[in-house]
Amino acid sequence: MSTFRILAEVPGTEARLGELVTPHGVVRTPAFVAVATRGTVKALAVEDLEAVGVEVLIANTYHLALRPGAEAIGALGGLHGFTGWQGPWFTDSGGFQVFSLGAGKVHGVGKIAPIFPGAAPIRPMGESLVRLTEDGVRFRSVIDGSWIFFSPEEVIRLERLLGADVILPLDECTSPFHDEGYTREAMERTHRWAERALRAFEETRGMGPNPDQALWGIVQGGAYEDLRRASAQAIASMGFPGFAIGGSLGRSKEDMHRVLEWTVAELPRDRPRHLLGIGAVEDILVAVSLGVDTFDCAAPTRLARNGALLAFSEEGFRLNIKGARFRRDDRPVEEGCGCPACRSYSRAFLHHLFRSGELSYYRLATVHNLRFMVRLMARVRAALAGGTVPSPDRLLTSLS
Amino acid sequence: MSTFRILAEVPGTEARLGELVTPHGVVRTPAFVAVATRGTVKALAVEDLEAVGVEVLIANTYHLALRPGAEAIGALGGLHGFTGWQGPWFTDSGGFQVFSLGAGKVHGVGKIAPIFPGAAPIRPMGESLVRLTEDGVRFRSVIDGSWIFFSPEEVIRLERLLGADVILPLDECTSPFHDEGYTREAMERTHRWAERALRAFEETRGMGPNPDQALWGIVQGGAYEDLRRASAQAIASMGFPGFAIGGSLGRSKEDMHRVLEWTVAELPRDRPRHLLGIGAVEDILVAVSLGVDTFDCAAPTRLARNGALLAFSEEGFRLNIKGARFRRDDRPVEEGCGCPACRSYSRAFLHHLFRSGELSYYRLATVHNLRFMVRLMARVRAALAGGTVPSPDRLLTSLS
Repeated sequence: MSTFRILAEVPGTEARLGELVTPHGVVRTPAFVAVATRGTVKALAVEDLEAVGVEVLIANTYHLALRPGAEAIGALGGLHGFTGWQGPWFTDSGGFQVFSLGAGKVHGVGKIAPIFPGAAPIRPMGESLVRLTEDGVRFRSVIDGSWIFFSPEEVIRLERLLGADVILPLDECTSPFHDEGYTREAMERTHRWAERALRAFEETRGMGPNPDQALWGIVQGGAYEDLRRASAQAIASMGFPGFAIGGSLGRSKEDMHRVLEWTVAELPRDRPRHLLGIGAVEDILVAVSLGVDTFDCAAPTRLARNGALLAFSEEGFRLNIKGARFRRDDRPVEEGCGCPACRSYSRAFLHHLFRSGELSYYRLATVHNLRFMVRLMARVRAALAGGTVPSPDRLLTSLS
Repeated sequence: MSTFRILAEVPGTEARLGELVTPHGVVRTPAFVAVATRGTVKALAVEDLEAVGVEVLIANTYHLALRPGAEAIGALGGLHGFTGWQGPWFTDSGGFQVFSLGAGKVHGVGKIAPIFPGAAPIRPMGESLVRLTEDGVRFRSVIDGSWIFFSPEEVIRLERLLGADVILPLDECTSPFHDEGYTREAMERTHRWAERALRAFEETRGMGPNPDQALWGIVQGGAYEDLRRASAQAIASMGFPGFAIGGSLGRSKEDMHRVLEWTVAELPRDRPRHLLGIGAVEDILVAVSLGVDTFDCAAPTRLARNGALLAFSEEGFRLNIKGARFRRDDRPVEEGCGCPACRSYSRAFLHHLFRSGELSYYRLATVHNLRFMVRLMARVRAALAGGTVPSPDRLLTSLS
């Protein structure tokens, strides 16, 4: 079982400094959880994560169940044994894939749809690969097109085999284009699934490679205030030791902030709160001030692969390494970063590797961006310890 | 200037144990030179090379001249400053691209064409991207289709900017399908180019980021005995401090061995001999016994990316990590290897990474295969020190 301790709070905000103690180590919060969908952070090895101070990873039950299969991972000691990452693991449940392979695909949107209210869905991307019933979800495999069935009970069985320290129940992540009626229906189903997951979790206690797992609840309800509050209350009432905030976060950053306010207000103060799929610097700072403790997001590692390197610089948080101005720039990406890329390589060399499509680029860029996230969260925690929530401007002008 | 010392010879063979002392460190020979075409070994960083004991790299003047440009690299301290690899560097001249983008493309073959003598060219692959005159070579850029001109003098100028420790003159690498008449013509042109390169090398002495470069000669002549002997004699007579063996090596492994015998017999005993583009275990062992000191080849790193991991195993030198039998295999690729992949990861995890197309795979596989080459050459040197040239069978059954 994990325990959560609050070490300090910032008056006038919901922000708190804390620590999440898991069977595989301590996570200092607020924390960024690095995304390792298939058991590895893309382009990195475990030593790279250790080198830059990453403390916790999140893997995906849907993807790992398809390949190599939860049984294979269970037989090899769970995620800790299989992947070599001995620190804390989270696993997501496949609930996000209900959205990304279902309504998200049909509606052609992400969890935040940046268009004007009431607009029609834009750029529909295809047919749903998801069939949903009260029992659970049938997914079409992205690997071979076969159908697999996820119920709340099956997901717990899979997550017992994977053995993460914090696991999440099957939920239904809704789209910004779902109306209030459908969002309510999906939310109520998610609540019933949460109760089934809790029962399955109790019935499988002690099974699998990690007997001390914790099951956190997921709050849904889209961007509708009454639904978000109702969902937070319902999920909180089930006694989960921690909470994740999932589903649609509305149509703008402002919507997202309101959703967080409504949700956090209904959650017990003493338990950790995880925000699924959010990782932009500005969003993290706002969410911290609204009481979120942990975040996961594929953006920092995906940005790295696309040439966007994160840095605390005069020009902002991003540096596009593709730019011709870096061709003869012998400085590191950021002075004082200390990551393996900045210790040994110039912007000019990274620019060359990126333009040449060299595989070496991906590791150096990814390790750098994760180092940035680690440094960002350390600055956030230092500010909280000093009694303030930092603004983006303050982060850019403070010392490394 | 580099110096070469022979430390031991194996009676009854041409094999020798030696060391090549360059301005950037010592290469123990026989040695495998890791291929870093665009300034990086694909998927690796410098620390990876250091971790597995790689001693020397070879880059390609043609590719680096196209991107990022030799001037940019020169301005950043040459290859040593630009790439961070502070050990010895070789640069190839672009002569191989005369073949690979020219006749090799038209004839649809590699440097060894494994078909019966006299057969017609197989699988022609396209039009030549090369226009050759006495002056030099015009290449069509593989990046933007523009034409660039390489003369013997221009190549020396570029290599002075790149600053490798051992550099090679522009030559014409011929095809196994070139007849004796054309092969002779190309060889004689290569000799005239070698003399021009030597003059240009003298005239630029002290220029560029590495004033102590050595220019080695390249022997051509295809698989024709009289031509190979004539080329080795001609190139040797020009006073180069070392030699590379280039060009077509015939239509079979046996042809290659004969070519090496003829060539080495005409080269001065006290100078190092490099075999361009050869790196299979069996070929290295034969070439060592015939008096070759260094090798470069893209195969070990390319094989890694394609799933073929090199090992000293009961089953031979290769293990195809894609195989379903590795899905639950918790052993390292090879016990006793000690590379970063074998220290921390199982065959099952590498199998999963490969099947999932994860970028993390490429680094681990590549670092493993280079570690294998380092261990292979160490075993070869140990055998030579003991007075024998090892056979493939002995290497497979000897201890790690």
